[in-house]
Amino acid sequence: MSNATDTESLISFRRDLHKHPEPAWCEFYTTARLIEALNERNLDSIQFGPEIHAGDARNNVPDEQSLQQWRNRALEAGADPDTVKAIGDGFTGAIATLKQGDGPTIGLRVDIDALPIPEAETDDHIPAVEGFRSETDGYMHACGHDVHTTIGLGVIDAVAKSSFQGTLKVIFQPGEEQIVGGKPIAESGHLDDIDALLAVHIGLDHPSGEIVAGIDGFLAVSQFRANFTGAPSHAGARPNEGNNAVQAMAAAIQNLYGISRHADGETRVNAGLVGGGTATNITPEEAFIEGEVRGETTELMEYMVDRADTVIESAAAMHDCTVDIERLGEAPSAVSDPELTSVVMAAAEKTPGVTSVIERDSLGGSEDATYLMQRVQDNGGAAAYVGVGTDHPGGHHTRTFDVMEDDIQIGIDVLASAIEQLGN
Amino acid sequence: MSNATDTESLISFRRDLHKHPEPAWCEFYTTARLIEALNERNLDSIQFGPEIHAGDARNNVPDEQSLQQWRNRALEAGADPDTVKAIGDGFTGAIATLKQGDGPTIGLRVDIDALPIPEAETDDHIPAVEGFRSETDGYMHACGHDVHTTIGLGVIDAVAKSSFQGTLKVIFQPGEEQIVGGKPIAESGHLDDIDALLAVHIGLDHPSGEIVAGIDGFLAVSQFRANFTGAPSHAGARPNEGNNAVQAMAAAIQNLYGISRHADGETRVNAGLVGGGTATNITPEEAFIEGEVRGETTELMEYMVDRADTVIESAAAMHDCTVDIERLGEAPSAVSDPELTSVVMAAAEKTPGVTSVIERDSLGGSEDATYLMQRVQDNGGAAAYVGVGTDHPGGHHTRTFDVMEDDIQIGIDVLASAIEQLGN
Amino acid sequence: MSNATDTESLISFRRDLHKHPEPAWCEFYTTARLIEALNERNLDSIQFGPEIHAGDARNNVPDEQSLQQWRNRALEAGADPDTVKAIGDGFTGAIATLKQGDGPTIGLRVDIDALPIPEAETDDHIPAVEGFRSETDGYMHACGHDVHTTIGLGVIDAVAKSSFQGTLKVIFQPGEEQIVGGKPIAESGHLDDIDALLAVHIGLDHPSGEIVAGIDGFLAVSQFRANFTGAPSHAGARPNEGNNAVQAMAAAIQNLYGISRHADGETRVNAGLVGGGTATNITPEEAFIEGEVRGETTELMEYMVDRADTVIESAAAMHDCTVDIERLGEAPSAVSDPELTSVVMAAAEKTPGVTSVIERDSLGGSEDATYLMQRVQDNGGAAAYVGVGTDHPGGHHTRTFDVMEDDIQIGIDVLASAIEQLGN
Amino acid sequence: MSNATDTESLISFRRDLHKHPEPAWCEFYTTARLIEALNERNLDSIQFGPEIHAGDARNNVPDEQSLQQWRNRALEAGADPDTVKAIGDGFTGAIATLKQGDGPTIGLRVDIDALPIPEAETDDHIPAVEGFRSETDGYMHACGHDVHTTIGLGVIDAVAKSSFQGTLKVIFQPGEEQIVGGKPIAESGHLDDIDALLAVHIGLDHPSGEIVAGIDGFLAVSQFRANFTGAPSHAGARPNEGNNAVQAMAAAIQNLYGISRHADGETRVNAGLVGGGTATNITPEEAFIEGEVRGETTELMEYMVDRADTVIESAAAMHDCTVDIERLGEAPSAVSDPELTSVVMAAAEKTPGVTSVIERDSLGGSEDATYLMQRVQDNGGAAAYVGVGTDHPGGHHTRTFDVMEDDIQIGIDVLASAIEQLGN
Repeated sequence: MSNATDTESLISFRRDLHKHPEPAWCEFYTTARLIEALNERNLDSIQFGPEIHAGDARNNVPDEQSLQQWRNRALEAGADPDTVKAIGDGFTGAIATLKQGDGPTIGLRVDIDALPIPEAETDDHIPAVEGFRSETDGYMHACGHDVHTTIGLGVIDAVAKSSFQGTLKVIFQPGEEQIVGGKPIAESGHLDDIDALLAVHIGLDHPSGEIVAGIDGFLAVSQFRANFTGAPSHAGARPNEGNNAVQAMAAAIQNLYGISRHADGETRVNAGLVGGGTATNITPEEAFIEGEVRGETTELMEYMVDRADTVIESAAAMHDCTVDIERLGEAPSAVSDPELTSVVMAAAEKTPGVTSVIERDSLGGSEDATYLMQRVQDNGGAAAYVGVGTDHPGGHHTRTFDVMEDDIQIGIDVLASAIEQLGN
Repeated sequence: MSNATDTESLISFRRDLHKHPEPAWCEFYTTARLIEALNERNLDSIQFGPEIHAGDARNNVPDEQSLQQWRNRALEAGADPDTVKAIGDGFTGAIATLKQGDGPTIGLRVDIDALPIPEAETDDHIPAVEGFRSETDGYMHACGHDVHTTIGLGVIDAVAKSSFQGTLKVIFQPGEEQIVGGKPIAESGHLDDIDALLAVHIGLDHPSGEIVAGIDGFLAVSQFRANFTGAPSHAGARPNEGNNAVQAMAAAIQNLYGISRHADGETRVNAGLVGGGTATNITPEEAFIEGEVRGETTELMEYMVDRADTVIESAAAMHDCTVDIERLGEAPSAVSDPELTSVVMAAAEKTPGVTSVIERDSLGGSEDATYLMQRVQDNGGAAAYVGVGTDHPGGHHTRTFDVMEDDIQIGIDVLASAIEQLGN
Repeated sequence: MSNATDTESLISFRRDLHKHPEPAWCEFYTTARLIEALNERNLDSIQFGPEIHAGDARNNVPDEQSLQQWRNRALEAGADPDTVKAIGDGFTGAIATLKQGDGPTIGLRVDIDALPIPEAETDDHIPAVEGFRSETDGYMHACGHDVHTTIGLGVIDAVAKSSFQGTLKVIFQPGEEQIVGGKPIAESGHLDDIDALLAVHIGLDHPSGEIVAGIDGFLAVSQFRANFTGAPSHAGARPNEGNNAVQAMAAAIQNLYGISRHADGETRVNAGLVGGGTATNITPEEAFIEGEVRGETTELMEYMVDRADTVIESAAAMHDCTVDIERLGEAPSAVSDPELTSVVMAAAEKTPGVTSVIERDSLGGSEDATYLMQRVQDNGGAAAYVGVGTDHPGGHHTRTFDVMEDDIQIGIDVLASAIEQLGN
Repeated sequence: MSNATDTESLISFRRDLHKHPEPAWCEFYTTARLIEALNERNLDSIQFGPEIHAGDARNNVPDEQSLQQWRNRALEAGADPDTVKAIGDGFTGAIATLKQGDGPTIGLRVDIDALPIPEAETDDHIPAVEGFRSETDGYMHACGHDVHTTIGLGVIDAVAKSSFQGTLKVIFQPGEEQIVGGKPIAESGHLDDIDALLAVHIGLDHPSGEIVAGIDGFLAVSQFRANFTGAPSHAGARPNEGNNAVQAMAAAIQNLYGISRHADGETRVNAGLVGGGTATNITPEEAFIEGEVRGETTELMEYMVDRADTVIESAAAMHDCTVDIERLGEAPSAVSDPELTSVVMAAAEKTPGVTSVIERDSLGGSEDATYLMQRVQDNGGAAAYVGVGTDHPGGHHTRTFDVMEDDIQIGIDVLASAIEQLGN
């Protein structure tokens, strides 16, 4: 179904994205490069910018100064200035539509953003060795979203050449890592005509050649930022006159991790980004925790939210500080529909390079693809989250994460084949 | 002893410095403006740059990128480019020498640096109302070192007009707030010919019109940076695979503040600047604490250092992390010599505007003037730390700190009068 | 299968036990009362005392003083002095054997011990209202083991009247709550001829009339006691000379609960009994934690043991204390065999009063019946853990726990019917 | 002033008390033995039992069961049954009055209680070697109150033989270690006719032969008991249903020790006796902290009380528990009067065996002799707290504390000589 030239071009596209990892709402280069690639294809529509987002559903948008830094970085790296401008205040991502006769509307969701992790420089890390390591200090495609974006492009090409009858909408979603991109796209209405939605993820500890037709076990997640405010004082001369926001923060961290496990299932908690104070000799006036809680079900996540709020508020009170808790991203659970996973299984079984097909597996993490899946399911459509195995040397979200590039084509073939089947 | 024009000029100089607060080793604007002012005076020598520092005694110098930002800021604010260049990699501060006949060498030490505290913008904060509030976001002269620098200039003028016979060396010391500037200047050898050293501080909760002839009770201080290193993991999918550096940091903070009080006297501890982690969904790989411990004596400070190290190392081990503890600034204790405080008392008692003279008081904080005082005392000289009262509305190291500008002249007059007496 | 007189007698027996709750290795009254009841039956053998325990496998035996107190209490309550003497140093429990023709050896395991929980005195708590509330302050049958013991007796009676051909061994096991009684009985060899072992538990949130044929999901558990030793000092005059064992203990507790959740399944941690220090004005020299960790699998339990040890040892080091960690009870996981659960299901379905039969459910707690089940299974036998529903007003291990006494007969009937079937 | 027989008898008395250490309100044996010894003297009155206490000012009285245990122990050790009965519910202590002509009323206060510390058994611990080690497990005269009681007796004898004209009242005060005995005796009115009050303490790190005429620097102290109440649950099956009182307690302990040091002077905090929970597998429903805070002044103590209350209440709220904070003992500061210390100095200087006389020293601990001193001073009298040095091998409140018995006579001689002087 593929040919060498297409594959080379896709690999080259993936490596370009890999060199320019960008976090949520800052995917200016990625979006511009993507629009450029979509423009080379014969599509019915290419939508991007504010029109693809329910604007008030966007959380955690960086301040203008940060956006401007990422815009500048994108422009320096060669992003098209008109596209960058059209993206506006971080309305990143795109929706590409291919119409090919009458038939159902099939959606494919891929995510495009990266992580604040410095990339490995070691000799056994292929991106370092072959020259496409991240050029943005402290950021990295450590979860394969560069590959997902590439798969999105490849599926368009493959479906265009196939007997598929219907409409294909590929949603290139920003901000998955921060769980902020799914909700505004789901609520934009652009998914409301979709009959079947596929989402895809590479790796997840499945080896090259393995396909998981339907992934479940998404942990519901809620992210927060707690800002503690106390009062400063000279730490040597007047220690008692300060209200120590760092002490409040530390008490909160210790007790957040100590929230009781729950009889009804898995829970999680993490204080992933924390800070406070200004100088060694000043009693810290301010401190913050950016963290998250998760649950195997929404109810379990809500139990954790309640307990976390109590811990944080009590820790502030304990040190005569105040605290303001802000909700950042959030995502529900979701379940893959069996009528769709059976189509994916059938497609996978006849795809060259696939050596193992698994019906279901559990993610054990969170994903805001669940917002899109729920939206489609609420409208009577079906949804499935497909796993494409790859022998990744380092774990997801670590400095040595990487994918075997041969597996990109396998992913494209399985998805395109399933989509073709759905449009027949 | 003063006249209106001189005073106006000094006030104007102080307000200029107040608008441009700079932290340790970054006092490019302050030093350049000071050199400019010294050049207008008739001095025997003006020394600055690397020659006034024992280079390897400098701790906590910012990285080149930070230095460059502060250099640029100084240049934009109008600092002389030649001076900025001569300062080099943060060799800030200056020593001005006035020779006036035969007689003893008298030193005066003033400090010049500022604090990472955002300045108040309220209607009752005079710098905000009268237009000389800090123009550098997040930094402020919240401890009066702008005034100290100004007093240094004023004393040169006053002594030059007096009957003083001898040599006056005014040391404009950088980096007091971080306790890093005193040691390299003390060890530079430039103080080794000083017979009597005066240091000065404004405020310290003494009202306008009050002079303290000799301040003691300097807490010995030791500052550290602890860098915790664990291992990252996906906080939802693989929480147990991470070694959580933020948990280690929080356990350390909780237990640092819990180090036992000591029977032999006052101790202090502060985790003044802390941080860790990268994103809500990643188990934090790194975290740090910049903190300090103090003691009423050097022994008490060392007790705190030992206990703090144990706490930090155990907290790291507890969460399967490693930790590296780096020493930042440090300062010993010191005592004002009675033969010098009696001279200051006598001078103060006859100075107009002085309404109260106190022989001794306790600082209760730390100061690296103690390095200079010890150096002079070790060489057989005398030293005293003089307090000049002022009705300061906010406490030291708070956003509303300010001084009554009329008290600047009082400080100049007392010091110049004492110096004149010493050179007769 | 039952008649009114038998039932009344059993209820009366249960209420007598309920009034005299006793913890692990202290079940002197319970064992003596049981032996008395067994003596009234026509049994092949009644074994108790040291002979039913592999002595060196007994953990956590109270000191002689405590044993003597419980012995005295039992004697005061009317326990037979000869039996109490024969029990010796806490070799509580009994094994009753009924031989009835040729056929397989079937085991039934019930537990007999109680919990250190004060019993409710409220008007809606039936034991309080009807006069059989615990007469031992601070102790209570809050998990239904009084009922289990009674079921053991009732099954002997029912099987004796049935067509059962074979040998029935009822194991009345002590010390389940502390996870200490299962191991020494399993290792005694008395189970080595058992072909099929049934264990039984009342309640577990299943309503009256519901039977669970096979309970799985036993959490593996490991219990420990950590003894912290520091150094005392006068807390006012010489605080720094003490090494504070209570601070070490508190740091350990905070961080034990903070041990990371695990991707592979459920874990638990509890610091269930803690203490330290002697008087308000003495820096605490000693402190202890009696706690436990659990895991859905033995591997997960071992992960928790490793992490807990690290936390405890680091907390001690943090406060210059030493710590000694002693293992108390431990229990593995176990799985009910389908060939046995199908017999139980068939029996339950035809038992009057049973309104719902569930094939399998998960316990979510720990049980040292697993030692006995594993022993039988390792010898080629089968084992199943049967749940007998009851509408219990308060949760297990709470002050208001109670059972509906009508459900005792249902439990007896289901188990006797299954045993009859196995011996045909 | 002494003779060998008297001294032998006093040493024997001291050793008897040393063998029978008793805590606050439980000094049945000590009081009975003391009354016996007083009856052998020719006194004007011997008062004990409820009449010497303002009853409602007594805090922290043990429950009847504990009192009865101590009563029984006293009787078994040979205490006079009539005296034990007359003491009633722990109204321990005594006041002995000697009238000897007209003159001022002089008070001497000694304390009689012991500590919950196990006594050393090593070869270098004289009480162990010479057969008068504590016979009460876990309790010890580890602060020399056995010696103080003996000094009280010895002073009566010496004054009786002297030229003293006036009234001597020796107050044998119970419950000093728990800071509970001073207040009810001070408020009883029995001190209201005292013109000068001396209190005495042995040791305090002063060597044999050294006398301190006036000790100051008593830390004000406030003791509390915090009872945390949560909700129990099965720690394995339903961890989330419990509200964990031990977690609340641990969070409180960690943050109590972390209360900020104060610029105005010394503070202290100690969680001296803590406990919680019932069994490893039950989420702890209850926990407690018995602790204390101190301050160099009453204001500093009150700062600590406020902060401690906030910490404790927030820790409870953090874990969805409630907490009840009860005040136990409390004692203010006090200052020795110079007119009295000068009399003591003069007396000491002429006493054989005294090699060093110090005018003033600081205790650095707390003492409820301050209640008695304040009462006398409030009534216009004078008070001083006298230190009698001794080479004590172990520190106060440690297992190896002991006194040199030769120093007992020195203490008697100095005090009797000062009293004689005051009554002339």
